[in-house]
Amino acid sequence: MQRHFEKANGAVETDGAATAGFRLNHTMLRVKDPTASLDFYTRVLGMRLVRRLDFEEMRFTLYFLAFLDEAEAAQVPEADSDRSEYVFGREGVLELTHNWGTENDPAQAYHDGNVEPQGFGHIAICVPDVVTACERFDRLGVTFVKRPDDGKMKGIAFIRDPDGYWIEVVQAARMR
Amino acid sequence: MQRHFEKANGAVETDGAATAGFRLNHTMLRVKDPTASLDFYTRVLGMRLVRRLDFEEMRFTLYFLAFLDEAEAAQVPEADSDRSEYVFGREGVLELTHNWGTENDPAQAYHDGNVEPQGFGHIAICVPDVVTACERFDRLGVTFVKRPDDGKMKGIAFIRDPDGYWIEVVQAARMR
Repeated sequence: MQRHFEKANGAVETDGAATAGFRLNHTMLRVKDPTASLDFYTRVLGMRLVRRLDFEEMRFTLYFLAFLDEAEAAQVPEADSDRSEYVFGREGVLELTHNWGTENDPAQAYHDGNVEPQGFGHIAICVPDVVTACERFDRLGVTFVKRPDDGKMKGIAFIRDPDGYWIEVVQAARMR
Repeated sequence: MQRHFEKANGAVETDGAATAGFRLNHTMLRVKDPTASLDFYTRVLGMRLVRRLDFEEMRFTLYFLAFLDEAEAAQVPEADSDRSEYVFGREGVLELTHNWGTENDPAQAYHDGNVEPQGFGHIAICVPDVVTACERFDRLGVTFVKRPDDGKMKGIAFIRDPDGYWIEVVQAARMR
């Protein structure tokens, strides 16, 4: 039974029984202006808004997005409760948290993690063709940190979302 | 064709042609001590170290982990280049970045995003049984931010990884 594919100090073999069924479900980012963020993640990146949860008393809203092809989209349940269970049970979900009112506060901005104090670095999307994808991002006015031909790592791009968070754009076949 | 499942300002309908095949691939977090982090993500959480990339000149290493069941693990390619393509082409991947030497610098620490300046919030894992999972985490000495029965949101837990990053623990069937 091949459990690990690379050696490294700390990486251990387990029988997997205690963690069977565990999945990496979502990554949460706070966003200042959900209208700008949802436009970016749906229109520009092509994600779908699978679930929205409003917390009136605590004055925040959670938006759950995922990339779904047509076959996957057809299998998303219609009822809200079923859709909640669906979105908390799959991989590849992005959760955007909007604390109400931040979009009207000119002084408010979130921290992208790539300047001090550092921590979180980026999320990444994989695309069938990184050059074609980035040409389209350019036409749509997306902000680039690094274009595919810049720097040492050819074929890898970094763009920014409306809050400035970095999004790596990779083409799996070019990462060999 | 149902493209969106929720209404929200900014969430638009596209034909999906320009973004076909896009996937949310990975989330990158910087880690101080890879031995501690790999122990946590493999032994405690049950992820597998699918790919490791060392950059000697730039003095950093990237570790790519994913949750894989036995059937998925059996399909991971053996050759390094194939495994790179695999890990950059799927969802649910965690990338840990280790800048060499941080583990020996007592003054160095990464920022978890949940104190000022805020930004990134957490990653989340979904598990078949949140109570059982958290009892095991407790036995293994994991640090909790919130146990499943704490606070208003019953059934949701938050734990910390060795750098202090928050990891939400959810059970999809309890999120309905």
